[in-house]
Amino acid sequence: MATSLRIDSFESTPPLNEPREDVIRVGVIGYGYWGPNIVRNFHAQEHSRVVAVCDKSEKSLRRVCQAHPEIPVTQDFRELIESTDVDVAAIVTPVWTHYELTKAALENGKHVFVEKPFTCTTAQAEELIELAERKHLKIMVDHTFLFTGAVKRIRQVIEDGTLGQIYYYDSTRVNLGLFQHDVNVIWDLAPHDLSIMDYLIKEKPEAVVATGERHLNGVADIAFLTLYYPNNIIGHINVNWLSPVKVRTTLIGGEKKMLVWNDLEADEKIKIYDKGVEMSGDVYKLLVSYRSGDMWAPRVEQVEALKLEAAYFVDCIMNDKQPFNNGIAGLQVVRTLEAADRSLQQKGKIVQL
Amino acid sequence: MATSLRIDSFESTPPLNEPREDVIRVGVIGYGYWGPNIVRNFHAQEHSRVVAVCDKSEKSLRRVCQAHPEIPVTQDFRELIESTDVDVAAIVTPVWTHYELTKAALENGKHVFVEKPFTCTTAQAEELIELAERKHLKIMVDHTFLFTGAVKRIRQVIEDGTLGQIYYYDSTRVNLGLFQHDVNVIWDLAPHDLSIMDYLIKEKPEAVVATGERHLNGVADIAFLTLYYPNNIIGHINVNWLSPVKVRTTLIGGEKKMLVWNDLEADEKIKIYDKGVEMSGDVYKLLVSYRSGDMWAPRVEQVEALKLEAAYFVDCIMNDKQPFNNGIAGLQVVRTLEAADRSLQQKGKIVQL
Amino acid sequence: MATSLRIDSFESTPPLNEPREDVIRVGVIGYGYWGPNIVRNFHAQEHSRVVAVCDKSEKSLRRVCQAHPEIPVTQDFRELIESTDVDVAAIVTPVWTHYELTKAALENGKHVFVEKPFTCTTAQAEELIELAERKHLKIMVDHTFLFTGAVKRIRQVIEDGTLGQIYYYDSTRVNLGLFQHDVNVIWDLAPHDLSIMDYLIKEKPEAVVATGERHLNGVADIAFLTLYYPNNIIGHINVNWLSPVKVRTTLIGGEKKMLVWNDLEADEKIKIYDKGVEMSGDVYKLLVSYRSGDMWAPRVEQVEALKLEAAYFVDCIMNDKQPFNNGIAGLQVVRTLEAADRSLQQKGKIVQL
Amino acid sequence: MATSLRIDSFESTPPLNEPREDVIRVGVIGYGYWGPNIVRNFHAQEHSRVVAVCDKSEKSLRRVCQAHPEIPVTQDFRELIESTDVDVAAIVTPVWTHYELTKAALENGKHVFVEKPFTCTTAQAEELIELAERKHLKIMVDHTFLFTGAVKRIRQVIEDGTLGQIYYYDSTRVNLGLFQHDVNVIWDLAPHDLSIMDYLIKEKPEAVVATGERHLNGVADIAFLTLYYPNNIIGHINVNWLSPVKVRTTLIGGEKKMLVWNDLEADEKIKIYDKGVEMSGDVYKLLVSYRSGDMWAPRVEQVEALKLEAAYFVDCIMNDKQPFNNGIAGLQVVRTLEAADRSLQQKGKIVQL
Repeated sequence: MATSLRIDSFESTPPLNEPREDVIRVGVIGYGYWGPNIVRNFHAQEHSRVVAVCDKSEKSLRRVCQAHPEIPVTQDFRELIESTDVDVAAIVTPVWTHYELTKAALENGKHVFVEKPFTCTTAQAEELIELAERKHLKIMVDHTFLFTGAVKRIRQVIEDGTLGQIYYYDSTRVNLGLFQHDVNVIWDLAPHDLSIMDYLIKEKPEAVVATGERHLNGVADIAFLTLYYPNNIIGHINVNWLSPVKVRTTLIGGEKKMLVWNDLEADEKIKIYDKGVEMSGDVYKLLVSYRSGDMWAPRVEQVEALKLEAAYFVDCIMNDKQPFNNGIAGLQVVRTLEAADRSLQQKGKIVQL
Repeated sequence: MATSLRIDSFESTPPLNEPREDVIRVGVIGYGYWGPNIVRNFHAQEHSRVVAVCDKSEKSLRRVCQAHPEIPVTQDFRELIESTDVDVAAIVTPVWTHYELTKAALENGKHVFVEKPFTCTTAQAEELIELAERKHLKIMVDHTFLFTGAVKRIRQVIEDGTLGQIYYYDSTRVNLGLFQHDVNVIWDLAPHDLSIMDYLIKEKPEAVVATGERHLNGVADIAFLTLYYPNNIIGHINVNWLSPVKVRTTLIGGEKKMLVWNDLEADEKIKIYDKGVEMSGDVYKLLVSYRSGDMWAPRVEQVEALKLEAAYFVDCIMNDKQPFNNGIAGLQVVRTLEAADRSLQQKGKIVQL
Repeated sequence: MATSLRIDSFESTPPLNEPREDVIRVGVIGYGYWGPNIVRNFHAQEHSRVVAVCDKSEKSLRRVCQAHPEIPVTQDFRELIESTDVDVAAIVTPVWTHYELTKAALENGKHVFVEKPFTCTTAQAEELIELAERKHLKIMVDHTFLFTGAVKRIRQVIEDGTLGQIYYYDSTRVNLGLFQHDVNVIWDLAPHDLSIMDYLIKEKPEAVVATGERHLNGVADIAFLTLYYPNNIIGHINVNWLSPVKVRTTLIGGEKKMLVWNDLEADEKIKIYDKGVEMSGDVYKLLVSYRSGDMWAPRVEQVEALKLEAAYFVDCIMNDKQPFNNGIAGLQVVRTLEAADRSLQQKGKIVQL
Repeated sequence: MATSLRIDSFESTPPLNEPREDVIRVGVIGYGYWGPNIVRNFHAQEHSRVVAVCDKSEKSLRRVCQAHPEIPVTQDFRELIESTDVDVAAIVTPVWTHYELTKAALENGKHVFVEKPFTCTTAQAEELIELAERKHLKIMVDHTFLFTGAVKRIRQVIEDGTLGQIYYYDSTRVNLGLFQHDVNVIWDLAPHDLSIMDYLIKEKPEAVVATGERHLNGVADIAFLTLYYPNNIIGHINVNWLSPVKVRTTLIGGEKKMLVWNDLEADEKIKIYDKGVEMSGDVYKLLVSYRSGDMWAPRVEQVEALKLEAAYFVDCIMNDKQPFNNGIAGLQVVRTLEAADRSLQQKGKIVQL
């Protein structure tokens, strides 16, 4: 005879709020587009737990409860930031709130994981870096791409000299929307490339030229950045919210080899071409010869970047290490964005960095 | 002064086991590769809840608890199948267990949602269909592809006459692994195409020819099926576990237009070509003319197929409707698989259906 | 018994030099990379014949003889230009020779078909236009792309309002080499896009910003042009001689629809997307909505562009019509190139047109 | 003062019909779709000249005169075949004429270059091989693909053991038309793959299974061939005249590595994947492990295949060498085609080779 269901949960998870030395307790502020990924990844780590989520929107909080019934939620960020049960504040909100929230979190003794771009101005970024230093707290700016298998592999082939001296970095990052109300397309899409370029290229950019146009809501929706580096290295970023197709393609030209990174490819994201140009002869009679050899697509690690980044931040906190994508890395990106904005407003006038 | 965290859960979900007239209670058996998707989708529906998950593996059950701490788990399928708290048994296990589990579930008065292929033999399928009928219970075979935007759109362009009379359906479905121990590549990959063909083509296949080869573990890992239909329609399925690249491409040729369905495309899954051949003249002096016009890629609905399928099954149960992907649809696929196996063993000898 | 071969030529072509009212006699100067195509196309027209080819290189002339044994050749361009047997001089030489050769040809009463870019400076172009006018002779600048099926189709969808008001034109035209000694990558590759933009966009560009870098032989090998137009239209051209992959992709964003032109696609060169963004609400509370519909790839005419262009020039001469790609069209491109060079040298300083 | 044009031809070519020891004189029969390529390539070789072209169609002969005014033409193949000025007859006509023309040419002491497929029947092929042997003449069957950079490179990676033991060869060769009146799609498209497989795979096929269907003019327009080889090697060929898209993709699976050859790719025709499956454990508990490493696209030689083939035939004649693509190679393909036809007519009944 059939009986009523008396199946117990197979394994009970320990209470979340209970302090444990080997677990970093994360409070997440902001549960919009990216927040769920932050919550999922900090929650699934061995050495971290999400102990609270804050969002102004009731609807967003309902989504938290559905996905993670065990995580407490709140609409008041003060409650989260002032709680003694929280070690890290993960700030996943619009950029114009980063400064205020990060400052409050640091002042309450929390480490901060904050979305890119770090702040709206270099002054804000500098103030926060100084504050974190004084309080002996860590800041990590979420430049997720630096934790992807693709970017790590590219860094490797640059570092081991495969490409030779870098000639250029040329990225196209276009798609339809998402339109932001508060920032233009440069602040929305270019931080990815700016942080990647900082990570890959040893030299620092010296100046920026930005052009672009607005068509709909008063902020630029299409823009083109040129970055001048020492040693004739040049960077170029094409960002566009009005493209019918999504493109995520970066060409990196080097003296010895050249690389194409297509982030939309499932399997062969990076292709390295044994192609190049060689010049010989004196200045009056140059002889150009082309080299065209094999192409090679190295296997790229497939682990979710945010998972690695979350683990890395937890490790930095536990072992008191400075993350490489810290406030200073975030400041560097904000400085270039600020300069790009200034150049854009003056229709391409060069702005020194 | 900072205080301890006292944030309450924003919204409390009602107890799961409590019987509610408008909620179908689903017990899921099997939590391997596909099981998590079944659980997630039946659990997120307005009118269904997963009330128990069963798997023999302790490790799998741990995964259930991590993802869904509120769902009870068990290693004993009898407990689930005999419970009065369960309305539907979702059977997401290897094919050789389908018959036994489905039979037990039906005998215990449960509706059954069962993975494809339905059973190992037509005899088993027929017995289960008969049993379900006798017990006034529903069987739905999980031919998920029939609920994708792509397949629904293709059916639409066939039904509205856009393609004209169908000439052929030619599918390539190859990738590296997953190797199955108990079934060959035909039973693993061909059910998708067989169910799609049954759904799209009005005529029923009359005979099948299958060829193939085994290279590693004694079961065919590469195979080619030809299906003969009335009216000169021909079907062809290329399945392969040893392909270095993943391909999911189907060509459908029609009298008026032709269609390419590339399921790996993100945005333009279906392309309809205004191309064709026209014959004129008498039998001795045929004149062929080619037509080559525009190509058109209709927008394809992006909703998760399994979500729609789960909702549809819940609706069928609540409103006592026969699902179109019922046991009979499942039987039709099993019959062809069985015939294909027979043909394969005889190196392509035609087997009538 | 076998006999010696006495097969006569099936059809004898009339003597080439004999004057015929309905045949334009073309003398081609320059038989390098592009010259053979010019010769082949003017020679195969019903109403034109190539009556002489001139090149300084003996090796090039040997190639002429091999391909067209019946066409006389010379190393002295004067001989060709002064001959009374020549109606048109087709100048297919490096850009720094265009002015001198075109001037000489016009002074000797020849119509001129000249490679792009027209001249090295606007002053030269203006002088030649004036000279041709005075002599009642035609100049056609070989902007071949304007005669491709793709560009003609794009013009049609713009003209008929399919795209709505144009927002941007963004072209990527990169590949490995060919390095030029005398011109930079802008003068080599950008004329294509500049002539196409002049052809497609009603408005005239008002200013240009150019950035770029040199890595090998002292001239820029990578460059980025931004063109400012009235009505917030923006143009962007990415040219690069150091790309491991060949790219020929142009995005055109419009108010109503958007277009992608991939010139390397064999069959579906143009794709038109029913995608867009709509803004509503007041300035403080903008509501953005995205539209995503079908994609449509219109059939594109496959006739060789140069064939159509050659026929068009012959027709312009015979019927005394001004070609739309005349000296003035060529001048417009040269003016932008000159301005881009000035901007490039000043690292992106805007230059008004 | 301008003078009349007196430019002489730069270089005079020697009279064509004059016998020269180091030049093979080729007479080409058939100037339809492929004929012009044969003429161009035999004519441009250092050690061969085309001395006559024969075609029944006056229109075709006009095309010869336009392209090669110096080559005599005729409508009577006897005139060409019986001429003492001809060393080689190149037969570029429909397959049903091959036997008669080749026989006549051999009987008149000509070497024969003949289009694929060699003949309509194995009996014909055997007779011609015997005749050529008796007359000490060469036959070369135009399996052009064997001279492409791609096929040569694939052969190399198979021969050097890169792929390991071959598991399968699976080719898709589909497009719209050209419809043939006299042969079905197997005879039209499969000879390419059959000759390539003979060239790449050491083992000989033992049996063939063919299925397919006819829709328009009474001959099969879509067909699928399976070839059984020793050592569990399997071959599969998918040919189709009714495909809206052109596909030329071949997968070759090996024990160690796997290869994809996409002949429509401009630059990366061959991709070699370091992917595989390894089995371990006993028969009851098989353990499967997947290997997924880098991908590598070797550079492929870009020389026109027919140019190399023509030079090779000339070399074989001059130095009395047996071409590897001789009559016997042609016979092997015809034997499989014949068997495939028989299998097709019996709906997939296996036919031993």
